[in-house]
Amino acid sequence: MSATTPVLQSLIAGRWIGTQAARGLHSAVNGRLVAQTHAEGLDFAESLAYARGQALPGLLKLSFQQRAALLKQLGAYLMEHKESLYAISAHTGGTRSDNWIDIEGGIGTLYAYASMGRRELPSSNVVHEGPAQQLGKEGQFWGSHVLVPKRGVAVHINAFNFPMWGMLEKFAPSFLAGMPCIVKPATATSYVAEACVRLIQQSGLLPEGSLQLIIGGSGDLLDRLEETDVVTFTGSADTAAMLRVNKNLIARSIPFNAEADSLNCAILAPDVTPDDPEFDLFVREVFREMSAKTGQKCTAIRRAIVPAQHLDAVAAKLRERLAKIRAGDPSVEGVKMGALASREQQADVAARVAMLSQGNEVVYGERDGFAPVGEGVAEGAFYSPTLLLCRDALTNETVHSVEAFGPVSTLMPYGDFDEALALAAKGRGSLVGSVVTKTPALAAEAVFHAGAFHGRIHVLDRESSKESTGHGSPLPMLKHGGPGRAGGGEELGGIRAVKHYLQRVAVQGSPTMLTAITGEYQRGGKMQEDAIHPFRKYFEEIQVGDSLLTHRRTVSEADIVNFGGVSGDYFYMHFDEVAAKETQFGQRIAHGYFVLSAAAGLFVSPAPGPVLANYGLDTLRFVNPVAIGDTIQARLTCKRRIDRGNRPDQPPQGVVAWDVQVMNQRGELVASYDILTLVAKKAG
Amino acid sequence: MSATTPVLQSLIAGRWIGTQAARGLHSAVNGRLVAQTHAEGLDFAESLAYARGQALPGLLKLSFQQRAALLKQLGAYLMEHKESLYAISAHTGGTRSDNWIDIEGGIGTLYAYASMGRRELPSSNVVHEGPAQQLGKEGQFWGSHVLVPKRGVAVHINAFNFPMWGMLEKFAPSFLAGMPCIVKPATATSYVAEACVRLIQQSGLLPEGSLQLIIGGSGDLLDRLEETDVVTFTGSADTAAMLRVNKNLIARSIPFNAEADSLNCAILAPDVTPDDPEFDLFVREVFREMSAKTGQKCTAIRRAIVPAQHLDAVAAKLRERLAKIRAGDPSVEGVKMGALASREQQADVAARVAMLSQGNEVVYGERDGFAPVGEGVAEGAFYSPTLLLCRDALTNETVHSVEAFGPVSTLMPYGDFDEALALAAKGRGSLVGSVVTKTPALAAEAVFHAGAFHGRIHVLDRESSKESTGHGSPLPMLKHGGPGRAGGGEELGGIRAVKHYLQRVAVQGSPTMLTAITGEYQRGGKMQEDAIHPFRKYFEEIQVGDSLLTHRRTVSEADIVNFGGVSGDYFYMHFDEVAAKETQFGQRIAHGYFVLSAAAGLFVSPAPGPVLANYGLDTLRFVNPVAIGDTIQARLTCKRRIDRGNRPDQPPQGVVAWDVQVMNQRGELVASYDILTLVAKKAG
Repeated sequence: MSATTPVLQSLIAGRWIGTQAARGLHSAVNGRLVAQTHAEGLDFAESLAYARGQALPGLLKLSFQQRAALLKQLGAYLMEHKESLYAISAHTGGTRSDNWIDIEGGIGTLYAYASMGRRELPSSNVVHEGPAQQLGKEGQFWGSHVLVPKRGVAVHINAFNFPMWGMLEKFAPSFLAGMPCIVKPATATSYVAEACVRLIQQSGLLPEGSLQLIIGGSGDLLDRLEETDVVTFTGSADTAAMLRVNKNLIARSIPFNAEADSLNCAILAPDVTPDDPEFDLFVREVFREMSAKTGQKCTAIRRAIVPAQHLDAVAAKLRERLAKIRAGDPSVEGVKMGALASREQQADVAARVAMLSQGNEVVYGERDGFAPVGEGVAEGAFYSPTLLLCRDALTNETVHSVEAFGPVSTLMPYGDFDEALALAAKGRGSLVGSVVTKTPALAAEAVFHAGAFHGRIHVLDRESSKESTGHGSPLPMLKHGGPGRAGGGEELGGIRAVKHYLQRVAVQGSPTMLTAITGEYQRGGKMQEDAIHPFRKYFEEIQVGDSLLTHRRTVSEADIVNFGGVSGDYFYMHFDEVAAKETQFGQRIAHGYFVLSAAAGLFVSPAPGPVLANYGLDTLRFVNPVAIGDTIQARLTCKRRIDRGNRPDQPPQGVVAWDVQVMNQRGELVASYDILTLVAKKAG
Repeated sequence: MSATTPVLQSLIAGRWIGTQAARGLHSAVNGRLVAQTHAEGLDFAESLAYARGQALPGLLKLSFQQRAALLKQLGAYLMEHKESLYAISAHTGGTRSDNWIDIEGGIGTLYAYASMGRRELPSSNVVHEGPAQQLGKEGQFWGSHVLVPKRGVAVHINAFNFPMWGMLEKFAPSFLAGMPCIVKPATATSYVAEACVRLIQQSGLLPEGSLQLIIGGSGDLLDRLEETDVVTFTGSADTAAMLRVNKNLIARSIPFNAEADSLNCAILAPDVTPDDPEFDLFVREVFREMSAKTGQKCTAIRRAIVPAQHLDAVAAKLRERLAKIRAGDPSVEGVKMGALASREQQADVAARVAMLSQGNEVVYGERDGFAPVGEGVAEGAFYSPTLLLCRDALTNETVHSVEAFGPVSTLMPYGDFDEALALAAKGRGSLVGSVVTKTPALAAEAVFHAGAFHGRIHVLDRESSKESTGHGSPLPMLKHGGPGRAGGGEELGGIRAVKHYLQRVAVQGSPTMLTAITGEYQRGGKMQEDAIHPFRKYFEEIQVGDSLLTHRRTVSEADIVNFGGVSGDYFYMHFDEVAAKETQFGQRIAHGYFVLSAAAGLFVSPAPGPVLANYGLDTLRFVNPVAIGDTIQARLTCKRRIDRGNRPDQPPQGVVAWDVQVMNQRGELVASYDILTLVAKKAG
């Protein structure tokens, strides 16, 4: 090995470790040495003690909102330095657009979680997953759920194909949840992960110890984990099965979330003819999933399920496209498909293609003249796009269970749609399936029947095609992970991913206790009423439980008449005494929106003040009718306040939600809702 | 064995199986033979084929709403026959109030899920877990999540302590989800489960095969399960660990939900003095959890954590209460504590108490004169309430890891509150912890710090005590299950429990496709507009996507003035030209509630018609301001319809939610919300 080849380092307990070379990592393009792993052993007891003792307290000093803000800054920092990541990623064999998925897709996930965190999480470390439920008749005992920090460590074991995206898509939600992370990338492409972690470290943005990195094996790390920790795994189903039964993980019920490669399918529905745009969309999608990232995506289409009568047409179109693709060193102009990640992968794919070929036809393959371009590519890990055809897919088990993790897919003809769905199910659990159809009822049928076997179903038609992100792309807001062979795990999927790294706790107690625990005012709990109208307080001055009981207002027939005149709403319940007598109320009643408007009139504070806007209203229920002669009164109580920090494009402000109860003269609730306001801060 | 002792039967593939006696099951009270298991082997291949082939299609012919209605009927049927269940349950050794938990608590869970299903689930078999997210700028590609039937079988392996509740609390959500269930009760008390299943079968209410019953061992059942199946387990942590690593479950990623006994704690907070009512509440709670069900609850308080200065006072009060309890045959008048479930349990508890006693003090125990009353109790499985005291609980590991599953608890003194929370955490994962305090901030601190180790935290004070259901009671609407030693599973917790038996699928496609898939209108999707106003259609006539674009209305200064007059809302944004100029809008704008009211005026159909009531409104957002001179127009589209069936106390009706968009003359959205209506059915 060359003395100048860098030795990759682990980042453990705040120190970069590794100077002595162990294993050489080679360019997938030309076989040249790129980097070397380090020979030094790692002390995982120290790593975990550091994560628990140093990193965790620092993370929990910040709120969800503050950690979300850091994710955004980190995204911006990495974006500024992305070219250095593209440079190192070139050795993985991917094209620039393959590496875009890994690098900018990864950074995009940071941004997405920054934004979701800002929109959906509180400015504390407790998520209230309400609404609370009344558990006793008198309202003195309530129950609800909160999510609190697990106070443990997240261990992320990642796959070789997306060393950066794979790391960041797990890091973002676990960091947001307040968990220190220990990442173990797949060794083959660990030089990319190391480069990314170095940048993160250099940024100085994150609390000390938020992220540790393991180059090489994970040793006894799993044996040392505790009940509060979490393990995630992306990779082969076999490795998942092996790690999942680790004695310590089992004994302590440590969550193990697995995302494994699966034999994903795409179905061309029977309503689509070769003349429809959907026909070409199907061909394009299968082609793209074979060639992008040289087919090394856990979501790639391995099984292309097509109506028997269109099999030849699909095969011909795919052959034509595959014949045109230029493979080779991605730095060569015009190259559209790169190499597999390593020579080991190349050998593995070849062996699996041999298994898949038995008894099946090769529609397109190496013999069709595969010749990658570029210097030294003979030493690289290139592989010809290979399209197989299985005519007996209902009985052939190999094509539903052997995955060649490369530019390889199998065509499977079907008779009717039920047969297509049965073929899809034979994958025994997939990350994703695509259905290409122009008929909404077929899409609905596919989801209802094949949904049980899929983590995601992507429906493609002419309407969605212009904006579709494609079969193979997991998105931060949608769940990634499927049942069965796909590992049974769940990643991403919006804020749900953050909740995997928090502990859900059912809480029970008096309304006053629940208010303190959840940080949200619970009706029946203690309130504060003082001389200052709540709408005249600045954000910093408002406390959860600040309350105002308004003056009263008697609702007259004139109110109903006037409100009808202003609104134009002459519904018989308000205006037709004859018909109103026949209703359950037996008389005319006031408009619900009048009650809402009159309540606003009761609690408004008319002069300019800190309340900048009432931007919405949630969960309005008209609980009881208001009749002519009834007298209403409103109670307004601060329910929730969220400090999202300050933004340069806005005056300093916070979000305040108010609980509103409108009651009648008998003390009965007539309307109930939350109003949402923006309230100015005193200080910038 | 007596020839007249019944042989219990399994219910497999629609047939009751078992005539030859195998193992005798004895009364916990007096050792007499109660029932015998059967000797015949069971064919689990047949059982599973029947569940998949016969039961599943029948279950999926019904909607969530229809299955919810059947749960309610089943609850009523069992309630009518409850005395036969009390009679057979007497052999378990429990008192009437212990058996109330099992029998009526179980039936109550059926009712609770019937009611939650009716309120929260659709009248189809697809749950839309929205809102959908726009994934492309033009709105032609959206993503969301649905939950669909897993199309598999739920296997429920239950504990001996609550043979009926334990069965029904898992059956209710899995039946609601549309899964056939196979239940394997613990053998010791399987006669209760068998009696309950016989009643269910007799009721004839459920689709054929909804519930199969295994008396005896589960043989190769787990080895035969598939990717779409689910296993739940309640029992010891050791058995959970053994079953969890079943090769077939691991290979197929079959979900395994475990709920294991744990060393639950109750903390008397440092703010409580012996003069406070909370002091006695703590003593009462510990006493009740020791004696109820003879301490055989997986939620029972095993560790009573008290301030060192109050240790003696707590110990004295508990001694006093324990000395008064009358134990024995529950059929004897005045008996308040029954037997353990079996002689095996009796021996096991004795062995564990011996371990716990080492190095610790016995505050109350057998030597204090334990003498159960009743005929034949010497052959029963009675055990003295036993209170231990561990003075070095921070370093003693035994008291945090050895559970005596009987009327046994250990007192542990602490110095400050941090130490109390550290002791709680030493349980390494519990189902539930109680905190008895009068200080909301202490309750919040306890949840924030100890929450990571608990599935549920119960806060008790004078305010909640009158209505509190107590430390030991899992409730249908609150999550049951804790991390670590408690098994890491989740049961109950409202509709969340139903979702464990459904498959979550991310779906992507055009708005029209998402509308068909989710059953909810997605903005941008195809609508139907016809000559009939949507509000003039009966429930059966309304289709998702039925839409009305209203006439327009120009908003004038007079509208603002009149609306202020009617509502009493003279906020400066609407009425103070000077101040309004300083706002971001630069001018006076109309009241948000005016826009809402005017929109109602635009789409109302004034004459009596099928729309019976507008009972609420959700997710209102004021997206853009409406200025004087702007012209607004509303679009009303049927978003969702739910048929909850008909009730004798109501005219036949369904729920319809309408998507409302209010736009201005530039086509910009100004307000967006859903309105909720009840719509009459044409036919009863």
